[in-house]
Amino acid sequence: MTTVLKLGGSVITEKETPETVDDAALQRASAALGGSSGRLAVVHGGGSFGHHYAASHGVSTTAGTRDDVAIREIHGAMKRLNAAVIDALVETGVPAVPVHPFSGAYRRSDGTLRFPEGAVATTLEEGFVPVLHGDVVAHATEGATILSGDELVVALAEALSADRVGVCSAVSGVYDADGEVIAHIDSFDDVAAAVGASDETDVTGGMAGKVRTLLSLDAPASVFGVDGLGAFLDGDDPGTRIG
Amino acid sequence: MTTVLKLGGSVITEKETPETVDDAALQRASAALGGSSGRLAVVHGGGSFGHHYAASHGVSTTAGTRDDVAIREIHGAMKRLNAAVIDALVETGVPAVPVHPFSGAYRRSDGTLRFPEGAVATTLEEGFVPVLHGDVVAHATEGATILSGDELVVALAEALSADRVGVCSAVSGVYDADGEVIAHIDSFDDVAAAVGASDETDVTGGMAGKVRTLLSLDAPASVFGVDGLGAFLDGDDPGTRIG
Repeated sequence: MTTVLKLGGSVITEKETPETVDDAALQRASAALGGSSGRLAVVHGGGSFGHHYAASHGVSTTAGTRDDVAIREIHGAMKRLNAAVIDALVETGVPAVPVHPFSGAYRRSDGTLRFPEGAVATTLEEGFVPVLHGDVVAHATEGATILSGDELVVALAEALSADRVGVCSAVSGVYDADGEVIAHIDSFDDVAAAVGASDETDVTGGMAGKVRTLLSLDAPASVFGVDGLGAFLDGDDPGTRIG
Repeated sequence: MTTVLKLGGSVITEKETPETVDDAALQRASAALGGSSGRLAVVHGGGSFGHHYAASHGVSTTAGTRDDVAIREIHGAMKRLNAAVIDALVETGVPAVPVHPFSGAYRRSDGTLRFPEGAVATTLEEGFVPVLHGDVVAHATEGATILSGDELVVALAEALSADRVGVCSAVSGVYDADGEVIAHIDSFDDVAAAVGASDETDVTGGMAGKVRTLLSLDAPASVFGVDGLGAFLDGDDPGTRIG
């Protein structure tokens, strides 16, 4: 059983304050992860670490940079957040090890992401918990562009043939038009009106894009808040199950 | 023209003092690199950063560890050295960006190294100078083992189809039995007696192993001291040319 888990940047950082970890939320998430079993790969977003530098350098998932300073600043900030996440996980007994996407992933000139998964797969097989993150990646003909945590989760889940995907978010799930969490989404048409209108958007594309992408996965995915993380790791379906 | 350059750990660190950079040597090397052109990938060894932790955890290129603490300590020390190398290179105008092998490389159960080169190749094509390092890597059935800078240089040169390989070492080249630098080595038999007897051995296998491996490369390689680095980057053959 291989699980890929996203810890949203908005969950584990104070989004309004540059480079500030939300220690309480990170500790709650780490406590839940400390009790989990099976093969687990973790991806975290950028929150107040990566986005600030990406914005200040004008770099996005499609707008590239040829400035090596931009790469070092964005990547450096994400490594500092990654170190904080790993420290918190280690405290709860998770054998966490860092995996930095810039060192292995890249985009072709058409924007297609390539993520050679051998190192992560071997790390998992050997009993460790790789902890990856949104990052900047080399992009043929564009210099370097952003790889969002959401895009990475999907790429990783596909590359590892994950059995389950969890997205631990700042919200409790995908909301319907009345503000209630939708238990199960089978097709985007069912929820297009509701998620299109949601205010609870993720910085790297919003809930609509997240739902659409998670529906495309072979594995079932769940979107839930940090309150639901323990239940998800126990095999339950907290929040919204997608697919 | 793609060049792969090794900066020996014994060149850029004080080998006798844990986690101590040899600032003067690193600055001299960086000054030489600041004036270079063409595609350049840099690999540095571990010196007094990585070897200490590898030894204390009993990890080698073949003896694995299943202790996540060992991975984090070895890898963390190498990332600190990598950051110092990149800072020095940036000071001299090199558009250096970090590439951490643990995030992309791994070994199969028979010990074969796999190094997916796409991220490094794209980084080079886009005009940046990737700076890699000896590291710990996941190793199927063994946990994790050491990837030496020397092994990485050879793997990278092959993967990138490098035109030239430089090994900037603590010595001025490969010495003959009289202590003179050999200008050119075409076959190992010519120098087996001399290099086998050399005291100037590299910590990860010695000069004999280095010569043997460099001879196996398609690209010509040179072994030289930091004094020869500028000449090598200008296209000359300082020290010992191998192959």
